[in-house]
Amino acid sequence: MSRHTIKFLPHDKVLAVEDGDNLIRAAMEAGVHINASCGGGGVCGKCRVMIEEGVVAAGVSEKLSPADLARGYRLACQTVVKSDLVVRVPIESVIDASVLKLPVPPRRAARIKEINLEELRDKGLFVAPVEKKYLELPAPSAQENLPDVTRLISYLKLKCDEHRLEVDLAVIRKIPDVLRADDFKVTATLVRPVRDDGKTRIINVQSGDTVDRNYAIAMDVGTTTIYGQVIDLKTGEVLAEHGAFNGQISYGEDVITRIVYAEKPGGLEQLHGVVIKTINQVLEKIVQGAGLDHDDISTITLAGNTTMTQLMLKINPRYIRRAPYVPASTLYPPLKAADLGMALGEHVIALVYPEVSSYVGGDIVAGVMGSGIYRTEELTLYLDVGTNAEIVIGNKDWLACAACSAGPAFEGGGLKFGMRAAPGAIEDFSIDPLTLEPMIITIGNVRPKGICGSGLITMVATLFEMGIIDNLGKFNRDLDTPRIRKDDGVYEYVLAWKEESQVDRDVVLTEIDIENLIRAKGAIYSGCMTLLTEVGVTIQDVERIILAGGFGSFVDLEKAMTIGLLPEMDPDKVTFIGNGSLMGARMSSLTNRIRKDVVEVTRKMTNFELSDTASYMDNYVAALFLPHTDMNQFPHLKARLEARKVTAK
Amino acid sequence: MSRHTIKFLPHDKVLAVEDGDNLIRAAMEAGVHINASCGGGGVCGKCRVMIEEGVVAAGVSEKLSPADLARGYRLACQTVVKSDLVVRVPIESVIDASVLKLPVPPRRAARIKEINLEELRDKGLFVAPVEKKYLELPAPSAQENLPDVTRLISYLKLKCDEHRLEVDLAVIRKIPDVLRADDFKVTATLVRPVRDDGKTRIINVQSGDTVDRNYAIAMDVGTTTIYGQVIDLKTGEVLAEHGAFNGQISYGEDVITRIVYAEKPGGLEQLHGVVIKTINQVLEKIVQGAGLDHDDISTITLAGNTTMTQLMLKINPRYIRRAPYVPASTLYPPLKAADLGMALGEHVIALVYPEVSSYVGGDIVAGVMGSGIYRTEELTLYLDVGTNAEIVIGNKDWLACAACSAGPAFEGGGLKFGMRAAPGAIEDFSIDPLTLEPMIITIGNVRPKGICGSGLITMVATLFEMGIIDNLGKFNRDLDTPRIRKDDGVYEYVLAWKEESQVDRDVVLTEIDIENLIRAKGAIYSGCMTLLTEVGVTIQDVERIILAGGFGSFVDLEKAMTIGLLPEMDPDKVTFIGNGSLMGARMSSLTNRIRKDVVEVTRKMTNFELSDTASYMDNYVAALFLPHTDMNQFPHLKARLEARKVTAK
Repeated sequence: MSRHTIKFLPHDKVLAVEDGDNLIRAAMEAGVHINASCGGGGVCGKCRVMIEEGVVAAGVSEKLSPADLARGYRLACQTVVKSDLVVRVPIESVIDASVLKLPVPPRRAARIKEINLEELRDKGLFVAPVEKKYLELPAPSAQENLPDVTRLISYLKLKCDEHRLEVDLAVIRKIPDVLRADDFKVTATLVRPVRDDGKTRIINVQSGDTVDRNYAIAMDVGTTTIYGQVIDLKTGEVLAEHGAFNGQISYGEDVITRIVYAEKPGGLEQLHGVVIKTINQVLEKIVQGAGLDHDDISTITLAGNTTMTQLMLKINPRYIRRAPYVPASTLYPPLKAADLGMALGEHVIALVYPEVSSYVGGDIVAGVMGSGIYRTEELTLYLDVGTNAEIVIGNKDWLACAACSAGPAFEGGGLKFGMRAAPGAIEDFSIDPLTLEPMIITIGNVRPKGICGSGLITMVATLFEMGIIDNLGKFNRDLDTPRIRKDDGVYEYVLAWKEESQVDRDVVLTEIDIENLIRAKGAIYSGCMTLLTEVGVTIQDVERIILAGGFGSFVDLEKAMTIGLLPEMDPDKVTFIGNGSLMGARMSSLTNRIRKDVVEVTRKMTNFELSDTASYMDNYVAALFLPHTDMNQFPHLKARLEARKVTAK
Repeated sequence: MSRHTIKFLPHDKVLAVEDGDNLIRAAMEAGVHINASCGGGGVCGKCRVMIEEGVVAAGVSEKLSPADLARGYRLACQTVVKSDLVVRVPIESVIDASVLKLPVPPRRAARIKEINLEELRDKGLFVAPVEKKYLELPAPSAQENLPDVTRLISYLKLKCDEHRLEVDLAVIRKIPDVLRADDFKVTATLVRPVRDDGKTRIINVQSGDTVDRNYAIAMDVGTTTIYGQVIDLKTGEVLAEHGAFNGQISYGEDVITRIVYAEKPGGLEQLHGVVIKTINQVLEKIVQGAGLDHDDISTITLAGNTTMTQLMLKINPRYIRRAPYVPASTLYPPLKAADLGMALGEHVIALVYPEVSSYVGGDIVAGVMGSGIYRTEELTLYLDVGTNAEIVIGNKDWLACAACSAGPAFEGGGLKFGMRAAPGAIEDFSIDPLTLEPMIITIGNVRPKGICGSGLITMVATLFEMGIIDNLGKFNRDLDTPRIRKDDGVYEYVLAWKEESQVDRDVVLTEIDIENLIRAKGAIYSGCMTLLTEVGVTIQDVERIILAGGFGSFVDLEKAMTIGLLPEMDPDKVTFIGNGSLMGARMSSLTNRIRKDVVEVTRKMTNFELSDTASYMDNYVAALFLPHTDMNQFPHLKARLEARKVTAK
C-alpha cells in the first residue's frame, strides 16, 4: 500500500498516512482540531477543510455550496486521501491561531506485539505438542497377524523411534477400517506429554498421508466475549478467527451475578450449556471459515478467568465469591472436548489454562505466558483492564499478581450514554479551547450513539488538560457555551446535539460519568501502586508495561497517563498485546514448552488479595483525582499544564 | 453341617454325604444304579429302595403301597438323608447281581480351586489397586486460601506420603461441596498405577471417613451369560453375585453370527447397547443385593472373549471373522465406566482384560491369571470348554495357546433334545446293563425336558463302557429293548417316555447326537494334542489340568476321559476353577500385581492358529472315535474294557 504525506495548515503539522485513509481521522492523529459534532457521519457539515494541493476522493456534500466545492472545500469526515496533500483548516480568528501553539501530545497507541515463532524456535522454546506421522504398514498375513493397534505401535517404534505410546479408545474404534481404507497407509496423530516422564498419546488415525493437515484451536472464554482462532500447527498461522458475545450475558454482566445464578437449582448446568453453545458457535464459524475437516483438528486450548473456567467445566463456582475466595482447583487434567459438549471430533483433547486464584485466572496466566513476561529480564508490569483489572509485576525470577474491581466504566458501563466499542460509539475526541466546540469521531464513522471506554478516557483527559474540568472532574462553571449546562442538577457537556445523533436526544458526558471513570482508574492505579509497594519496587523501577484486553487496543497511552490510569512512562516502553488470553492459548497450542512452563509459572505467581492489604485504601483515595493527589508522580503532565498556564496568560 | 454314611446293599458300597442330601444322587455318586426314568421328579415310581437302617425324610409317595411304606420302602429320588443309612436296592435276578461286580469308576468331579488371598499376601502378590485415605484438613482462611484440590493434594503428600497424584475432573466438580459438608473431613479414593512410573489417580472424594467402604465389581462378559460379582476390597469377600443371559443372544447364538449382525448398518451400536443393558441389569442386581452405595464402588474389571470385548467397547469386530483374523487391539487403556454406558458412578474406572488374539480373548487371559498357571512351576494344561474351546499349555516360563471350534454340543446345542444346564436337563445317567433301563437325574429334580452338555458326556461314556454303543457311537443293533429303536431311519435310545417327561414326547438320545459329541470332543482333544506337539511336549509331561467354563463344573472327569474328551490322567491332578474369566476379573480387582503381570503374560502367550497347523486335521480324524483310534492313549479305560469283556464272558 502506498503512503502519503499530509500537511495541515495553518498548524504546519505533517503526518504520514496510508492511501485511502480518512482525512478527519488523520487530523485527529496529528492533533489538529476540526469541529465535528456528528462523529464522522457527514451530517453536521462543520468539518469543512480546503484541499490546497493533492488529490482526494469523496468529501463532496450538499452541506457545501457549489462555489465552496469549486474553491476546493470538502467535508473532512467524508474525504479519502489519495495523494500527498496540503490541507487548510479554517480558523475563525487570530486568537484561535495562538491555541495552535499549545503543547498537545500526539496520539500514541501502544506498539502491538505479535508472536514470533522464529524467535521461539531459535530460543529452543518450540516443542511441537501435536505431531502427525505417516507410515506405510505391511498388511497382515496368516504368518503375521498382529492386532491392528500393535501393528501401528510396532512400526511407530521401528520407523519413527516413538516409545512410551498410549492409545485412546477412539483410535481403537477407528483403526480397523482406517488401516484397510488405503492399503495400510496411515497417519497417526501423536500428542506429546507435558512432562518428560509422561507418555505420548495416539489420539487419531487417518487413512493415507495427512501430515500436512495439522490444526489446533485456541480460545479465550471471556465473561463478555468468546474469541476463537484456528491455527495451522505447521506454520503457526491463524487461518480463521471469530468472536461472539458469551451467551451467559443474559444471566448477568459480571462474574458475581453469574455465580449467584449458578447457585440456583439447575443454574450451573444452564450456564454451562449456554457457554458451550457460544463456544460451539465460534467453533463452527472458524472451522468452516478455514475450510477444515474436523478430523484434522487435534487440540483446543482454552483460557478464561476462574469463574468462566469453572462454569465451562461445570464446576460449582459458589466459593469463588465468598471469603476467603477459594477456587475448586487451579489445575485441570487434559480433557476430551467432546465430553464437555464441544462440537469437535471425539479425539480432540481440551487443554484448560491453569489459574492462580479465584480472581487471577487462566486468562491472565495465558497473558503472562503469551507475552513472555515470565522469561524476560526486564521488570515488567502487565495490566489487563476490563470490568476487573488484573495486574502482574515481575520478570523471569519472580512474579506477583493482584486483581481489583474497576467497575464497568472502561467497557462503557454505568455511563449515561455508555456503550461497548461498537459502531456509533465515540472513540476519539478533541475540543477547541476557545469555542469549546468538539471534534468527535465514532467507530464506523456514523452518527454518535454513545461513548465507549477509550473515548471516555480521551474526553476526560482532553477536558482536564484544556482546563475545562478540574482535578476533581468538575466542569469550570464560568465557561460560556451552550455545550456545558446543568441538567437535573448535574453538570454535563453536550457531545452531539439531538439532530446530529442516532438516539433522538443530545449525547452528553456528565460529571457523574467522569466520577465513575475516576473511581475506575483510581482502583487500577492504586492496585498497581499497592502491588509495587508490597513487592518492594517503585514505578521508576518498572522497565516495561504490557497492556492486554480489548480496552488496550484503542486507548491513547498519553491520555491514559493524563487521567492517571497508567503511570507516566515512555510510551515506547508500553506494548499492547491485544487479547492476552487468546495469545497465550495460541502459544500453548503451538509449543509444549509453554504448557510445561506454565505450571511452574502459576506456582511462582504470588497472589496478593488487595482487600486484605491495609495500604490499598489509602492509595485508592489518593488516586481519586486527575491525575493524582501527588502531581509529582506525573512530571510530564505537570510540565505541560504549567506551560499551558504560561501560554494562556 | 453334619455328615452321614450310606451303605448301599447288595452292592456293599459306602459313601459319605451331607445331611439333607438327596438319596438317588448319593446312589449315582456311589455308582449304584437305580432305575429312574423321570429325572427325580417322583413320577415314574421306579426308584424304590428299602431303608434298612437309619432315618430319612420324605420319600413317601402314592406310587408306594401302605404295606411297602410300612416295610421301609421309599422313592429314592424323593428321599432326604438325615442319618447314617443302610439302603437296599431291589435286584430283580441273580444275574443282575453279577453286574454289580463290574468295575465302574466312581463319579469324579474335579477339585474346586478358590482364590486364596492369604497366599497372595504371603507371596507379595497383593498390591491394593484402590485405596481410600481419610484426612482432616484445616479450613481455608484469609491467610491461607489454597484451592480445594491443592489443599487435598498437599495434605495427601504431608500426611500420607502420597506423591505423583493426578485428579479427575469428576473430583474437581465434587470437591468444593464435599470438603465443606463435614468440616473439611474427607476421604479420597486413590487408584494406583499399574506401572511403577505411572501416577496415582484421585478418582473420588467423599465427606467424612468412608475408608471401610471400598468395593469393586468383577464381570465376565460371556457370549451366552454375563456374570458379575461385588467384591469387598478390604476382605476380598464376594458380597453378591448374579448372572444373566447376554441380551445379544436374540441376535445370534455364537460370536460369528454376532459379528455378521454388527456389520449391518447400526448393528454395532445395537449390539453394544444390548450388552450394556445386560451388564446394567447384572450391576443393579448385585449392587442392590449387597446393599451398597454406588459412590463406594471404584472400579469394574471386565473380561470377555475378543468379540464380546469389542462389541462391549463399540469396536467393529468385522476383521475377527476374516482371515488372517486380526483384532482391532488386544490392550485397552483404563476407561470410564460411565462413558461406556454402564450404570455406575461417573468416577468409576473400567478395566478391560487384554487379549492374545481374535480367538484367545480376555476371558482366557483372565483364567490364566486367576488360575495362577503363569506363575506355577508345573507344566499345566488349561482348558476352557464351551462352544469354542480355548487351550493353554505352559507354566511360569512359557505359555502357548490355541482355540478351536467345538460346536454347541457341550452347551446342549445341535442335539435333538439339547438344552442348557437348566431345570429339567438330564445331568446324570446310568444304565442297567441287563434290562437297559436308565437311571436319570435332572437339574432341579424335575421331570426331564432334555439333555445338557455334562449329561450328554455321561450318557455316551456310560453307553460306550457298557458296550451298548461301539467306538463309532453306533448302537448295538442286537439288543432287545423297546428303549433302543429306529425312528425316521436314525437309531436312538429312549431316556424318558412321554408320560414321564415335561415335553409331551419321548426324550431320546440319537446316534446323530452322539456323532455331534464325538466331533466336538474330537476337535478339543486333537486341539490339545496338536498344541502339545507344536510346543514339543507329550501328554505324559503334563503335570496338572485346569478346567474352566460353566461346562467344567458338572462334568464327570472319568466320563470325559472315557469318551476321549480329556486325556487320561489322575483325577486328583485336575482342578476345576469354574468361571475362570470371572475369577481373573476378581483377582485383578483385588491386586494390582495381576494387572501389572498380565501385559507381560499376554506377550508371553504364543498363539497357534490350529487351522494353519498341518497335523491338526490328522489328529482330528484320529480323535473321531470313542475314545480314540489309538487306545494306548487311554490305558486305564483299555484295562477296564478288557476286564468287562472277561466278566461278561
